[in-house]
Amino acid sequence: MYYGAIEAGGTKFVCAVSNDHLEIVDRVSIPTTSPLETLNQVFDFFDQYSFVSIGVGSFGPIDVNKDSDTYGYITSTPKPGWGYFDFIGTMKEQYDVPITWTTDVNAAAYGEFSQGSAQEDGSCVYLTVGTGVGGGAVVNGEILEGFGHPEMGHILVRTHPQDQYEGACPYHQNCLEGMASGPAIEKRYNKKAQDLASDQKVWEIEAYYIAQALVNYTLILRPEKFILGGGVMKQEQLFPLIRKEFASLLNNYVDTPDLEKSIVEPGLVDNAAITGCLLLAAESANR
Amino acid sequence: MYYGAIEAGGTKFVCAVSNDHLEIVDRVSIPTTSPLETLNQVFDFFDQYSFVSIGVGSFGPIDVNKDSDTYGYITSTPKPGWGYFDFIGTMKEQYDVPITWTTDVNAAAYGEFSQGSAQEDGSCVYLTVGTGVGGGAVVNGEILEGFGHPEMGHILVRTHPQDQYEGACPYHQNCLEGMASGPAIEKRYNKKAQDLASDQKVWEIEAYYIAQALVNYTLILRPEKFILGGGVMKQEQLFPLIRKEFASLLNNYVDTPDLEKSIVEPGLVDNAAITGCLLLAAESANR
Repeated sequence: MYYGAIEAGGTKFVCAVSNDHLEIVDRVSIPTTSPLETLNQVFDFFDQYSFVSIGVGSFGPIDVNKDSDTYGYITSTPKPGWGYFDFIGTMKEQYDVPITWTTDVNAAAYGEFSQGSAQEDGSCVYLTVGTGVGGGAVVNGEILEGFGHPEMGHILVRTHPQDQYEGACPYHQNCLEGMASGPAIEKRYNKKAQDLASDQKVWEIEAYYIAQALVNYTLILRPEKFILGGGVMKQEQLFPLIRKEFASLLNNYVDTPDLEKSIVEPGLVDNAAITGCLLLAAESANR
Repeated sequence: MYYGAIEAGGTKFVCAVSNDHLEIVDRVSIPTTSPLETLNQVFDFFDQYSFVSIGVGSFGPIDVNKDSDTYGYITSTPKPGWGYFDFIGTMKEQYDVPITWTTDVNAAAYGEFSQGSAQEDGSCVYLTVGTGVGGGAVVNGEILEGFGHPEMGHILVRTHPQDQYEGACPYHQNCLEGMASGPAIEKRYNKKAQDLASDQKVWEIEAYYIAQALVNYTLILRPEKFILGGGVMKQEQLFPLIRKEFASLLNNYVDTPDLEKSIVEPGLVDNAAITGCLLLAAESANR
């Protein structure tokens, strides 16, 4: 008895197979090319197993509204070939089993909530800061969704007073993603983030944007834990800077848990999303 | 069989008594003076009835964490005499029945969700813009809370490029409340909001702040409906301006319901919070 999981990212698909104890028994990484080429490679891998259910956490935006005609689609992505691709419909033609569908960051939040850094908390936000900025949340044990899934990487932020950069988001220019993503850092300084590691000002400005976002998430959601992942967050010097700026901006207006323990790295390192997908698959099988 | 409800505001307490069909049979408005004087007047009124349960929606911040030593307290309010007042403890000494405790805006969100403008929706945000700015949300039929209750009136916003005002919030200076509350409008223009009704620029700037907040709430929560109440929102010219600015700032990045129908006035007019308190009382009795 196997569960399948796909963490569908913009550059690669991570596919995993677990036994019924949710232990991963096989996995593969597939480059994200065209939808059909990519999914055919997924099928080649998955066809070796007989699944009871599958969980998919995808790059977005995606349609998660079960009443919608385009439920299961990736929607308005600029990624060539993937706009309005019927991901779940295509999967369903191959595998007639329950398939859970959410965003990669929702899956990561759920993985961290269940087995990672937030497993002792009642709620958490998972934020990835990398090629893009995206977030998912778990509230009362459930993935937070409404009319659609959150896109909390695009919230509007104030520009740092010493930052001249105009922002990289094609939709909102200087929103959080526009100012704080890896590509925004690269374009601003004409260097890769990792080549700027020792430049304190770079990270103070980066921390200012991320802290603003965490303050707004706090005032709206009051999560017990923030889990910060993604390529940019490999710059570990960011964590103390974010905590300091967060405390300064929030100014003790509401209580928070100890920031050392509540603004943290993913406990599952790079396996948060794939773990979340497996958990969602297992739950859909038991429903 | 009666349910009791208190909408505990900073200037007045509205107390209501309903029968078991949740029809209000008696109500009174009491000025908010000192805690004991005010609550003694509440007791004088409530003592006429025998309650099965009571719901309280209070001005905040309040402690809603049931594991906390100060659960049931109003916490860090600047309002004289009310800081760290044990509201629910004092109530419990008088009435040995289940007492539900939440914020006034959470209660209003719940009232609107159950019987008001959002009764056909799966989620909503209620935002009041008046002496202060405060918000509550209902997600999957439940009031949204985490480590504490939301304080979404204090989210950080960008200052309008033509606005010279420095902001009125003692904690965050130019947060949403600092820029968009009734007192902020008055201080900025040295006139009452209602005396500025015909000044288009005033309301464009006001709409800019409120729309920014709704965009961020959307990207984080994706609510199906926004219900905007409070004294400032009596300026009905704000609604079309907010919808226009919201659409411009969000820039079609995510789908929303039709804005004409999803950014609206309270269906229960000024009874949203007291209705929510009665509903919460009834639910705690049935638990």
